[in-house]
Amino acid sequence: MKKITLKEIANQLGISVSTVSKALKDYPDVSSATKSKVVELAESLHFTPNTFAQSLRSQQSKTIGVIIPSMVHYFFSSIIDAVLKEAEAKGYMVIIMQSNEDYELEKKQVKLLLDKGVDGILISLSNGTKDTTHLQRVIDFGIPLVLFDKISKLLKCSKVIINDIKASYDVVTYLINRGCKRIAYFRGDLNPQNSIDRFLGYKKALEDNNIAYDPALVYSTPNANFDDGYQTTKKALEEHQMNIDAIYTITDLTAIGAINYLNEKQIKIPDQIAVFGFSNWFMSSVITPTLSSVEQNAYKTGEKSVEILFHEIESKQKGEKYDYQTITIETELILRNSS
Amino acid sequence: MKKITLKEIANQLGISVSTVSKALKDYPDVSSATKSKVVELAESLHFTPNTFAQSLRSQQSKTIGVIIPSMVHYFFSSIIDAVLKEAEAKGYMVIIMQSNEDYELEKKQVKLLLDKGVDGILISLSNGTKDTTHLQRVIDFGIPLVLFDKISKLLKCSKVIINDIKASYDVVTYLINRGCKRIAYFRGDLNPQNSIDRFLGYKKALEDNNIAYDPALVYSTPNANFDDGYQTTKKALEEHQMNIDAIYTITDLTAIGAINYLNEKQIKIPDQIAVFGFSNWFMSSVITPTLSSVEQNAYKTGEKSVEILFHEIESKQKGEKYDYQTITIETELILRNSS
Repeated sequence: MKKITLKEIANQLGISVSTVSKALKDYPDVSSATKSKVVELAESLHFTPNTFAQSLRSQQSKTIGVIIPSMVHYFFSSIIDAVLKEAEAKGYMVIIMQSNEDYELEKKQVKLLLDKGVDGILISLSNGTKDTTHLQRVIDFGIPLVLFDKISKLLKCSKVIINDIKASYDVVTYLINRGCKRIAYFRGDLNPQNSIDRFLGYKKALEDNNIAYDPALVYSTPNANFDDGYQTTKKALEEHQMNIDAIYTITDLTAIGAINYLNEKQIKIPDQIAVFGFSNWFMSSVITPTLSSVEQNAYKTGEKSVEILFHEIESKQKGEKYDYQTITIETELILRNSS
Repeated sequence: MKKITLKEIANQLGISVSTVSKALKDYPDVSSATKSKVVELAESLHFTPNTFAQSLRSQQSKTIGVIIPSMVHYFFSSIIDAVLKEAEAKGYMVIIMQSNEDYELEKKQVKLLLDKGVDGILISLSNGTKDTTHLQRVIDFGIPLVLFDKISKLLKCSKVIINDIKASYDVVTYLINRGCKRIAYFRGDLNPQNSIDRFLGYKKALEDNNIAYDPALVYSTPNANFDDGYQTTKKALEEHQMNIDAIYTITDLTAIGAINYLNEKQIKIPDQIAVFGFSNWFMSSVITPTLSSVEQNAYKTGEKSVEILFHEIESKQKGEKYDYQTITIETELILRNSS
């Protein structure tokens, strides 16, 4: 049987080869009318998935895009580490962008990646992202998209997450079992789903242990950095006249800020105040006292996210359907001297 | 005057527009014979630098490539942070690759970036890189290339470095002035220029202070990680029967490994043994004791490197000559409790 080429399809429709190729790859800059015509003709000519894949293979961008909120963050640099290693093994290049937790910038970056014709996108949402239309467009264009860590429940696509409610519930239950009753929570920015879920886990653990929830013990620490931890500890201890027996934070860096303030004031950790972080940064194992935290398996999150993305890219190239997956990465309490 | 287009040049030479464009952009996949013909004709048709730039502008990849040895490293993630921010401001995308200190991988990555047609490349060499032919090719092809941190003196291109000899000399002189005489040096991998230069600074400071250089006090710590620092401290103290009064290391992470071993053995820092790192990682300011280090201004290194790269890319696009620059970023001793 004669092999059908992109050129023949292009000639029959009176459009360019590149438009045919883009239409078959479901690129955003081809109208849906043209796409329908191309796909219809391709099918009628028995342009099979195999020759499909073959023709397309050489025209892939072999590039994926990754958008993260911040680079100088142990969690995200570990994820990027995993993504680069997996991409390298598959012969893919990786364009990395940093949204700096800014919605407008993130929107622009998604558009740039689409314009560039990347084969797929991995993203952890910025704290500023409430509207997800820009990502819905990616899905609508049929470009594989995987959300990790900071996700939106509204988007139908693959996701790699942890069970934030449960992880947070476990931390607070542990602190309560150790005798803590006045547990301050530094919850990060209010908006991201993981901030909401960890807060819910905190609240549920209190309820299940018959400890009244006191909203005055919950502080927003939007930058989730060292300084947020240091300053908020100062503020919380003043506001509650030292009547706090544990500080639990959205991330280790914030907890390390808290530890530094407590050490400076010679407040004994954990005897007077216990401290518990989240994410298990490397430095948490080398500070004094060593910090208890939640191991979130960043490397595994990166590995799994890119694995799903490549599965979707390859399925699409073969013309095969794929199901969206939601993978929950296991977390683990790491108990150290701070609690 | 009629505006000359790439198409006319292509028609006259009987080659494709894309070959003309590539030839004018000095792409590697066009033969030098073709390049000469194209450039000659372009000049004879008064295809001036301006229309040049204009024609080329739309055909730029607007993408740069960055190759670093490792992502999960505070120094490099700070550099990437700066590069992404500057590139964002200029509307450039950044492909990031991680050589894992492996020469073969680095070579492959440089080739991939050239094939991809990036507008310029930033690179910090892997420890395994002795032969730099792959980078000489980049220079020969006229693709802007900027080396930073781990460089090769053999390559003629722009470089952003620190004065490693001086910085290291200053650390060791400071330790000697504090009364240290038996200063162990954990020098990282033997190969990179910065490892060589820091070692030379160490040796010169000893000589200038009439302290005999003892090669048995110098240890190679090729992974320059926490474990290298921990294990090498153990080994050094055993080999020298505790007759060591300072440990100076190639990077803070290694110094933190040393501190951890000393803390475990309840050896007093700095009274019994002082510790001095290099690179001023964030965590050095929050561990116990806080670690003295050399501020290397990673962010500024990244900023300056990408600034030079964009200058060269833009000059090339305008058809203007540019000179290679070597910029030395200032360093500073950060004195903390460990010394």
